[in-house]
Amino acid sequence: MHVLNNDKDGLKDLSFINEIKSIAVIGPSEKRNFFFLRNHAENFSGNIYAVHPSLNQIPGFDDGTKNKIFKSIKEIPDNVDFVFIAVPANKVINVIEECAEKGVKLATIFAANFSDAGTEEGVKLEQELIKKAQNRVRILGPNGLGLFYPKLGIAWRPKFPTIPGNVGFIAQSGGICNLAVYSGMELGIYFSKVFSFGNGADVDFVDLLNYLMNDPETNIITCYLEGIKNHRAKILKRVLSENMNHHKKPIIILKGGKSSMGAIAAKTHTASIAGNTAIWKTLFRQYNLIEVDSLEQLLHAARLINFYGIREYNNIAVFSISGGYGVVLCDLIESHGMRIPPFSPDIQEKIENKFFMEGTSPKNPLDVAAQLFYSESIIDIIDLALSDKNIDALIMDLPCWYFHPDFYVLPDDKLEKNLIKAFNLGHAHDKPLIPIIQRANCPKHRERISSLLHDKKIPVFGDPLEFLPLLPKITNYSRRLKDSC
Amino acid sequence: MHVLNNDKDGLKDLSFINEIKSIAVIGPSEKRNFFFLRNHAENFSGNIYAVHPSLNQIPGFDDGTKNKIFKSIKEIPDNVDFVFIAVPANKVINVIEECAEKGVKLATIFAANFSDAGTEEGVKLEQELIKKAQNRVRILGPNGLGLFYPKLGIAWRPKFPTIPGNVGFIAQSGGICNLAVYSGMELGIYFSKVFSFGNGADVDFVDLLNYLMNDPETNIITCYLEGIKNHRAKILKRVLSENMNHHKKPIIILKGGKSSMGAIAAKTHTASIAGNTAIWKTLFRQYNLIEVDSLEQLLHAARLINFYGIREYNNIAVFSISGGYGVVLCDLIESHGMRIPPFSPDIQEKIENKFFMEGTSPKNPLDVAAQLFYSESIIDIIDLALSDKNIDALIMDLPCWYFHPDFYVLPDDKLEKNLIKAFNLGHAHDKPLIPIIQRANCPKHRERISSLLHDKKIPVFGDPLEFLPLLPKITNYSRRLKDSC
Repeated sequence: MHVLNNDKDGLKDLSFINEIKSIAVIGPSEKRNFFFLRNHAENFSGNIYAVHPSLNQIPGFDDGTKNKIFKSIKEIPDNVDFVFIAVPANKVINVIEECAEKGVKLATIFAANFSDAGTEEGVKLEQELIKKAQNRVRILGPNGLGLFYPKLGIAWRPKFPTIPGNVGFIAQSGGICNLAVYSGMELGIYFSKVFSFGNGADVDFVDLLNYLMNDPETNIITCYLEGIKNHRAKILKRVLSENMNHHKKPIIILKGGKSSMGAIAAKTHTASIAGNTAIWKTLFRQYNLIEVDSLEQLLHAARLINFYGIREYNNIAVFSISGGYGVVLCDLIESHGMRIPPFSPDIQEKIENKFFMEGTSPKNPLDVAAQLFYSESIIDIIDLALSDKNIDALIMDLPCWYFHPDFYVLPDDKLEKNLIKAFNLGHAHDKPLIPIIQRANCPKHRERISSLLHDKKIPVFGDPLEFLPLLPKITNYSRRLKDSC
Repeated sequence: MHVLNNDKDGLKDLSFINEIKSIAVIGPSEKRNFFFLRNHAENFSGNIYAVHPSLNQIPGFDDGTKNKIFKSIKEIPDNVDFVFIAVPANKVINVIEECAEKGVKLATIFAANFSDAGTEEGVKLEQELIKKAQNRVRILGPNGLGLFYPKLGIAWRPKFPTIPGNVGFIAQSGGICNLAVYSGMELGIYFSKVFSFGNGADVDFVDLLNYLMNDPETNIITCYLEGIKNHRAKILKRVLSENMNHHKKPIIILKGGKSSMGAIAAKTHTASIAGNTAIWKTLFRQYNLIEVDSLEQLLHAARLINFYGIREYNNIAVFSISGGYGVVLCDLIESHGMRIPPFSPDIQEKIENKFFMEGTSPKNPLDVAAQLFYSESIIDIIDLALSDKNIDALIMDLPCWYFHPDFYVLPDDKLEKNLIKAFNLGHAHDKPLIPIIQRANCPKHRERISSLLHDKKIPVFGDPLEFLPLLPKITNYSRRLKDSC
């Protein structure tokens, strides 16, 4: 693998993260009910320690057989690879000095009121912090939540998933990381690593991008970015170029601070200079990043790519349970620059032979009406549509009540089983099949089916506008990727 | 009330609908497990009859004490106001003749294969049908599902809600009506009447629009329209003008068939000529209709207007639990043409006094971080923000896990109670408060809270792009409404 990971290139080596064996939480807070300690302890299988000057007992943490609470990190008999520091800003300097002495490799600093405060004092404190770390401890933060690494069970929040995925996520904001991770659970997105780097005083966006680019556990890079420091622009371009030419991992980016008020808010939030939107847009285009407008779009784009890969969405087949909804889907698909072509003559003829009920239409868009309840025929129809060389992908609308027998129009005891078979045909044909299961009167059944389909890497949406704007973005990315080969 | 309801104006009187007392389902199908009969019988409190030439028993319908199954509609001893006709196309003519004799006022014809078939034969059959109805029976259909009228318990589908609302919906497509009604239940939207008029051979879009415009039970008119017959254009304009100048009911419209393939699909679907998109757009603007792009947008626009009325969304306050998400919200709000102004100096000062935790920001956008768990202060902060004369509305993001105590960062046993108090402040100040409760790891809690808030007429969204594009549409509608006064 192409490696760019060394300090003389202005990029900090973080490859040790994949080998973290022991961690400590410094400053567990009784008032917060030991929130960060409990969360880090929840799924971590290595050694975990608490550091506190006066606490002797932490309910549920120290069972008395082996001491896990120490007055200082220096007293821990074991090596400590990673620490989560939850002490107030004014105590951080001392703690980081001790970490450097102890040989800690990575520290998350949760406290705010460093450069993010926008005061001279805060800026000075942050400079002092970096000095004391002596380039021996890499720092995530201050004002960050650090590292979520499901494979090793490292997490700052309760019930973060333990299933490792291949999507990496980088953000300054911890809150947006929480949203990405917890929303990901609803959407079938699992992460390799998630970083909340806060003020980015030491490890910053560029370092983390470079790390994920080189990380064998990460295939898709997603990020929320407010801004970078001016002197890092050149190095960012180098990393992006390296990715475009060698690693070719898709990078999906949500840029915060594009509007006047957003830029001011970003400055308040993490002291970031959001910079000129046009310059960022040009950069993203130049290095073939996929830019999205919301966190929700970022997650949806990640799962479309994760589940169906990089490909072009030009010619779409539409399968609708309602003629009217099918018409609207066609309008929306065309208004997003895609086509709904007729099926090839031979396929069209075969599809026509499968239709036998009134109110149906065997042409693209397919309107199956109540023939849905002859679900064996539905499998055949979808199979035929996907086998057409004119078709790149199939979008299928099916509201959630079709998964609740009380709402069946005709009896069909194999409906659900057959529909799931049909949904799977996208992967069988290596063509995306995208179900829209509208959010309606059967939320529990919707949840049940969605989760089942997500396990099979079939992305369920509830509203066509959640994903239609993303398909041309993936198409453009795919074309530019080919062009650059 | 201004009334335009008479036949010589080319508009069919349908006011008798509000007085329907007895109904019959003609052609209940054993194969469909008496689907349409069961559904119409589910909540209708008046007399309901089944008509079938050979069936003597229908499980759960006729209890044997009083005959409710008749061989022909003529044999029913009672008056019959409304019939749902579920016989095949070739038998409809005879049935409609009998209905005309019997004095039936309104008939839904479910069968397809009339003009929708695109055949000369189908067109002729439809003409014959209208002739036989003799202007004595008004017809919804053919190829339609007819009438949903929750106040009277008339419904063509199982478990349609029995709660009457003030939103009317008109569509050719029955499937899109099903989606509107069942999705409405998830969104807190309840309907006065819903019409699926299919081919519109007799009663058409223009008649129904006129009816809802004059209907005292309807305040908001929503519709999905594929097209109208050329000779109805002039009358449509007359109705729209009447509405704009007198009734002033908001009309939210989703136009199907705007794209090339959508237009072809609409023709297949209901034999509608979708017409020139530019002409429709001009018409909608001229008569101040609110045009949306998807059924989901239509429903969201309806509830924004239903819950918060007609108003301008110019200056928005943002309340965020995550600084990063707040930045993105600002970007999205500005990119949709709205502003995030600073609070007035006096309000700003008062808000600043309410903030005491790190990582928070008391300016617009408000970033409350972990101070959320001092939820008494949150009520005060929102109250102050809404009291600012510079602010038209407040958008508040709060992911679903904040409604599950396992995920609290700090203990706060009044959190949920206080948040609900805070959500209510929009109505107290007569300013829209729009919560974004993101769909994440706690779907059951999200559902619980959403349903609770919808009962209080507070519209919950899961994604900012579900509603942000609609706010400028409501603003424009509101401005034009004022201009026309």
